[in-house]
Amino acid sequence: MLAEIITIGDELLIGQVVDTNSAFIAKELNKTGVSVYQITSVQDDKSHILQAFKDAENRVEIIIITGGLGPTKDDITKKTITEYFNDTLVLDESVLKNIEGIWKQYIRQTLLQVNKDQALVPSKAKILMNRIGTAPGMWIEKGEKVFISLPGVPYEMKALIKNEVLPNLTKKYHLPFILHRTLLVYGLGESTLAAKIEDWEDALPNFVKLAYLPDLGKVRLRLSAKGFDKENIKTEIQKQIDAVLPLIEDNFFGFEEEEGAVESIVAKKLTSKGQSLSVAESCTGGKIAERFTIHAGASNYFKGSVVSYATDSKINVLGISKEIIDTYSVVSAQVAEAMASQVLKLFGSDYAVATTGNAGPTKGDSDAEVGTVFIAIATKKEVYSEKFMLGNHRTKVINKAVNKAFEMLLKEIFKN
Amino acid sequence: MLAEIITIGDELLIGQVVDTNSAFIAKELNKTGVSVYQITSVQDDKSHILQAFKDAENRVEIIIITGGLGPTKDDITKKTITEYFNDTLVLDESVLKNIEGIWKQYIRQTLLQVNKDQALVPSKAKILMNRIGTAPGMWIEKGEKVFISLPGVPYEMKALIKNEVLPNLTKKYHLPFILHRTLLVYGLGESTLAAKIEDWEDALPNFVKLAYLPDLGKVRLRLSAKGFDKENIKTEIQKQIDAVLPLIEDNFFGFEEEEGAVESIVAKKLTSKGQSLSVAESCTGGKIAERFTIHAGASNYFKGSVVSYATDSKINVLGISKEIIDTYSVVSAQVAEAMASQVLKLFGSDYAVATTGNAGPTKGDSDAEVGTVFIAIATKKEVYSEKFMLGNHRTKVINKAVNKAFEMLLKEIFKN
Repeated sequence: MLAEIITIGDELLIGQVVDTNSAFIAKELNKTGVSVYQITSVQDDKSHILQAFKDAENRVEIIIITGGLGPTKDDITKKTITEYFNDTLVLDESVLKNIEGIWKQYIRQTLLQVNKDQALVPSKAKILMNRIGTAPGMWIEKGEKVFISLPGVPYEMKALIKNEVLPNLTKKYHLPFILHRTLLVYGLGESTLAAKIEDWEDALPNFVKLAYLPDLGKVRLRLSAKGFDKENIKTEIQKQIDAVLPLIEDNFFGFEEEEGAVESIVAKKLTSKGQSLSVAESCTGGKIAERFTIHAGASNYFKGSVVSYATDSKINVLGISKEIIDTYSVVSAQVAEAMASQVLKLFGSDYAVATTGNAGPTKGDSDAEVGTVFIAIATKKEVYSEKFMLGNHRTKVINKAVNKAFEMLLKEIFKN
Repeated sequence: MLAEIITIGDELLIGQVVDTNSAFIAKELNKTGVSVYQITSVQDDKSHILQAFKDAENRVEIIIITGGLGPTKDDITKKTITEYFNDTLVLDESVLKNIEGIWKQYIRQTLLQVNKDQALVPSKAKILMNRIGTAPGMWIEKGEKVFISLPGVPYEMKALIKNEVLPNLTKKYHLPFILHRTLLVYGLGESTLAAKIEDWEDALPNFVKLAYLPDLGKVRLRLSAKGFDKENIKTEIQKQIDAVLPLIEDNFFGFEEEEGAVESIVAKKLTSKGQSLSVAESCTGGKIAERFTIHAGASNYFKGSVVSYATDSKINVLGISKEIIDTYSVVSAQVAEAMASQVLKLFGSDYAVATTGNAGPTKGDSDAEVGTVFIAIATKKEVYSEKFMLGNHRTKVINKAVNKAFEMLLKEIFKN
């Protein structure tokens, strides 16, 4: 069963908004056994949208459309869908009631005609009720094909996918089982990793696909298989994982599907041990803390962070001695280690990680070359650091430093 | 002149990677006068890629392809391009030299055959030299059409777009002038804003397009026009801006094209006044600090941040009295204001912003309802706070709180 995602909006074509909806929808469809054949982003332009619908209908069975359902004049998706199906708009009382409810509870302003008009839907559409927004989802069948139109606001779209779209797709189609397993590999380049596992890769059975997803100091290695014999697929993928793991042992830290992200591996391990973490960030500027706190349950193990961006804040807030900074400079192993030790004490945590470096584009409070980053780990027993040269592209330096910090932290907490 | 962006990679179609490349490319092309007609993401599958090339060639003049140029076996873009143009692969000595140089300087391991093979290119391709990676960009002309293939690694792709693709496009085509001006509007909903400016919107000349881009507490309002009479376009857009600004005065904080993002408005204002900022974050967990430190020059005004996630860290690190927390609870106006005042003192900054709240999904160290957030602003003269109810979706609560913090901060620093 194949799907196409069509995202509608000029803001995508002029690069003002990154299309994060497609990735979410694609991931959820995949888990349900629907493969996404293509993602197409088109302008808020009637003839272009009509053409995209026609092309998609020739390629796939399921067409998921997001965007262009708002109350303002630039939103033309609903009208265009109505035209595509030679349909007319009719008022849906249940949608109007939903809109009035949301207005009463959250907005508390006069309900405008443009908002009421969001209850107008094509007569052939089945409503997918949007309980947290005013634009309803719509499901229109045409023989074996189905068109699903969803609002572009991410959290409204996400709720509709989970509560309405996936259950309805599972009901309508007999879907295959799709399994992805992604190994998180740190500290090996793409081609070095490929060379290490070449014999294994060459011997993979045809129905197992392998992909390398490299990203600044880590590679995600993805195994995929699809079919109706669920048990056989599970067994075969597990067999291949058992075969490859001994080849990459030292660099393997978990599976993305189980952990979600690397911070979740840290979270799980620390929570299970009843231990805690704090962070002192200079060049990474809050990015490490943010990676932990975005997830629910962070308060179980994450104590907090100090972003000591200005040099004097390293002295005043973290309590690092001025002598160490004057002697070794603010970008040094000594300062990184002092930051880690101090933040460990300040927050009373079991582990601490600290970063100090120069992300560029120019030299800052230190003479250190652009791209120089020191990362330190402190525990109640010891403190140590590593020096990295991470290039001269600011965002890349910061993101690489974050990945390196996670790599060091993982190694430390898995040691014990 | 129309372009299509084709991004290649199974990881996009299974939702493992968000396609950020397209937005970057689209933005850069737009600035140069090339309109992006469509963005298409396809699988690492030969026949699908060939079909996508053919379709794109029928729609547009310029086809920009990213992804699938790596050294591993799942990367098939180069071979597929060669087949599409009935071409053969030949060794390019300058590319090989570039690869050897990168290997010598950064990798310092044996150069593998798969890496050397990256110097094989279609004989009809003009090379766009990738100085920071091993996969070269390629430029292939076919009559009036041009196919441009770029690596998928974002920073390599970005460098090639800026240094090679844009200059070459400007040389080859006579490009129109495109102007976008995006007003950053805080504190008005989409339909309320639309109602406020309806008469103005209805009177807009045909060649000026208007779009509403709503996002959790803010709306970006974008005016666009395109043509060969640059001065006329500039004058007309300015005229429309002058007409709309008085209607939204209290809620307008700047232009996205000049400021890049709202944090840059803060940055510019503080830097020009020689003033500084610090942040105390609880529920926003480092996100506010990160928004500032990701930009170069942050050290001119950004002192630092304390992410006091655990309740005891508010006492131990920020020095808030236990009595205030016990009396009012950790999610309260009093604690938010104490956090702002304390962090202002700790970092010696002119302004401070603090957040404390419960982002959910369950109640934490406080009895406050999920979605309750207090945000405080401190200056050397005063401290005050506001309470917000931001719903019950964790990520949404966090992001809305960040936007509200920026709104309050902007109002404060523009007051003086």
